Amino acid sequence: MRLVIVGGSDAGVAAALRARELEAAAAVTLVLADAYPNYSICGLPFYLSREVEDWHRLAHRTAFDGIDLLLNHCAESLDLVGHTIRVRDAGGQLQTLPYDRVLVATGARPALPDIPGMNLDGVFPLHTMDDSFAIDAYLRQAKCRKVTIVGAGYIGLEMADALRIRRLDVTVIGRSASPLPSVDQEFGHEIEKELQRHAVGVLCGAEVTRVGRVEDRLVVTAGDLEDEADMVIAAPGVRPSTELAAASGIRLGVAGAIAVDRSMRTSAPDVFAAGDCVETWHQLLAANVYLPLGTTAHKQGRLAGENMIGGDRLFAGSLGTQVVKVFDVAIARTGLRDDEARQAGFDAVTVESAAWDHKAYYPGARELRTRITGDRQSGRLLGAQILGHWQAQVAKRIDVFAAAIYHGMSVEGLNDLDLSYTPPLGSPWDAVQIAAQAWATATR
Amino acid sequence: MRLVIVGGSDAGVAAALRARELEAAAAVTLVLADAYPNYSICGLPFYLSREVEDWHRLAHRTAFDGIDLLLNHCAESLDLVGHTIRVRDAGGQLQTLPYDRVLVATGARPALPDIPGMNLDGVFPLHTMDDSFAIDAYLRQAKCRKVTIVGAGYIGLEMADALRIRRLDVTVIGRSASPLPSVDQEFGHEIEKELQRHAVGVLCGAEVTRVGRVEDRLVVTAGDLEDEADMVIAAPGVRPSTELAAASGIRLGVAGAIAVDRSMRTSAPDVFAAGDCVETWHQLLAANVYLPLGTTAHKQGRLAGENMIGGDRLFAGSLGTQVVKVFDVAIARTGLRDDEARQAGFDAVTVESAAWDHKAYYPGARELRTRITGDRQSGRLLGAQILGHWQAQVAKRIDVFAAAIYHGMSVEGLNDLDLSYTPPLGSPWDAVQIAAQAWATATR
Repeated sequence: MRLVIVGGSDAGVAAALRARELEAAAAVTLVLADAYPNYSICGLPFYLSREVEDWHRLAHRTAFDGIDLLLNHCAESLDLVGHTIRVRDAGGQLQTLPYDRVLVATGARPALPDIPGMNLDGVFPLHTMDDSFAIDAYLRQAKCRKVTIVGAGYIGLEMADALRIRRLDVTVIGRSASPLPSVDQEFGHEIEKELQRHAVGVLCGAEVTRVGRVEDRLVVTAGDLEDEADMVIAAPGVRPSTELAAASGIRLGVAGAIAVDRSMRTSAPDVFAAGDCVETWHQLLAANVYLPLGTTAHKQGRLAGENMIGGDRLFAGSLGTQVVKVFDVAIARTGLRDDEARQAGFDAVTVESAAWDHKAYYPGARELRTRITGDRQSGRLLGAQILGHWQAQVAKRIDVFAAAIYHGMSVEGLNDLDLSYTPPLGSPWDAVQIAAQAWATATR
Repeated sequence: MRLVIVGGSDAGVAAALRARELEAAAAVTLVLADAYPNYSICGLPFYLSREVEDWHRLAHRTAFDGIDLLLNHCAESLDLVGHTIRVRDAGGQLQTLPYDRVLVATGARPALPDIPGMNLDGVFPLHTMDDSFAIDAYLRQAKCRKVTIVGAGYIGLEMADALRIRRLDVTVIGRSASPLPSVDQEFGHEIEKELQRHAVGVLCGAEVTRVGRVEDRLVVTAGDLEDEADMVIAAPGVRPSTELAAASGIRLGVAGAIAVDRSMRTSAPDVFAAGDCVETWHQLLAANVYLPLGTTAHKQGRLAGENMIGGDRLFAGSLGTQVVKVFDVAIARTGLRDDEARQAGFDAVTVESAAWDHKAYYPGARELRTRITGDRQSGRLLGAQILGHWQAQVAKRIDVFAAAIYHGMSVEGLNDLDLSYTPPLGSPWDAVQIAAQAWATATR
């Protein structure tokens, strides 16, 4: 069995490893556009903050036993009939690889705004290892004092944090009314305050229309505002990289991502796809969405690897579970926000409540704010968001909600879960359950 | 509706509050043997360590609106036919209270060993607020330098930690082969090392046979060993306090605890019972066990309160989820250990693995050790234990396992959960899932 995998990030590597784990005889070739197999792209801000000193440490793994790695190779075209793929190395040398099954895991790229100035010297996207090397080199050479970040999603916010650690002045410009539009504005405003507490300038509800250069500085224009900087980092959302698949006639789906079924099969025989280049099954919506996340890429890749060697497993679906640390605060979400739930036809009610992360009498207790979204008719748990100190177990508390939503629990049902307690680490009713009780009281 | 609740700790107060929440017209009388309604008994070690300076802060709550509190009243007898309960105040005054429904929430008491010397001056149990006041007073008056703790369960270990914070010399003597017999010995040995790292003497596999006094010191005899101390704290397990129920002919069950059904009804009409005095439905064993825990008492109490005013809810069952912090380490468990699972007829396999609590490249990563117990035949998840640094989200990770077990998940199914990830707080496959994959690999 000859497997060719195009893409060496989370989905591609997970698939390669899983296929080899289950079928040691499989011949697996991994085609990478760069020289960084399975590097943690989510780790780039921490490299740029210098919290990670050696970039090699960003590798999720360094051992790829039994996997044939083709570094710095671009996949040029896919011959669906002949079952071959043509790849080109850095020197321009072409090679044709036969396959029995192929995985397209070509990922995504920044959805850079189509405005003047994005190609100016000093304007950088941040999506690849090479992007981060370029940013780091420029920061050092150009003796930057001030950086403007365009985009207030999680990468933009992590970069604001990272650059403040390097003692640079930072402004974040975001289109949405508050930072981190993936969570409710009530929490977005708290994040805005946290940014301001750490001397980050925040401009929200602002559409950047151009970047220009005036003498030795860059000028970012957003409506009436002009923001000067020595460097601009563009941290917009991403769009799926689908050229290879589209050119061979493979069907695209939601948001132009590669259409896949829940076994990660595309419209073409023997062609699988996974990760940031595909549409993703959303468990609560029971529909495909475009929701690129590293966790999902790992899951889809592992499953694709299993199915490519003859397995028959279905992707359970995403709940969009996410967490991000911004300075001292962690913000997490899973499932649907109120507006998303309404759009999907639920009779959504969202109730916010507060609770201590552990017994208040034990030193270091932190307040957690939790917003639960549930369906008023059925009582079903639809989503949760938590905001609190980053060391207050926010991330794993959202995971308790995620596990509950996965199983279709009701909000009230959370009170039946036998959760752990000791005064330094929780409460007899955990914050998760206190939030559930607050929702129930408010909706009775 | 006149409700009388006997016992003012977790179960009693949870019942009182829940009944009042759902039925504002209910007349609720709470009969307490002491003057500390709903104090956090789990917090006593932190008061004795002086991490909590003011003992009043140990109160889970201080407002009991609409609830008639009879402090320092002992319930003497229950007239099941006449629907009355006789109580005696501290001055010996008797009072007879009529009830429509009564809740027996009389808790538990230390199962002190029947050996000579337990009544000597300087030997203390630790179960009530008054116990902790007595210990604190003795520690100060007697100028103790060395304390011996008899019992290596979680209270014994928390007290060792607490007394080291006060810079006392401490020895812990336990009957089991390693400390904390509720987890596997592999983890017990790690706890032993952690105790020793903090200069706590540990004597395991030792049965204490007497406590004596030689001049101004106490001498604890365990087999050939004699251990001298200025104070002895007895921290054995507990036994249910059932005198009131038993004397009125209410049926007792497992371990002599009050027999209840899953609606928390006893064998007597209109008599409910909840908390440390009752047997507890174990969800995985589908049988009653004696498993007194504060979390369970809260759940059973809340449910009893609901059912006493006409509700019809069933206790979902306990999984024995627990966590304890001992110095820098947290140890958590949920579900069944290997031996417990075998005893229950499962084809149990337990696999230990290690993973980082968050991406190793981000500062402060800690190794977590996880032991998963699953059924080889069905693949069903039966139990999990985690050991790691107390700030490494151990407690809420065990809760993810607890939520999974609650829903009857397979070990492999854990990989389908959409858990949160950001490099400072997790991994694309969370430690929970890495452990699941290790179990699957080892049992393939």
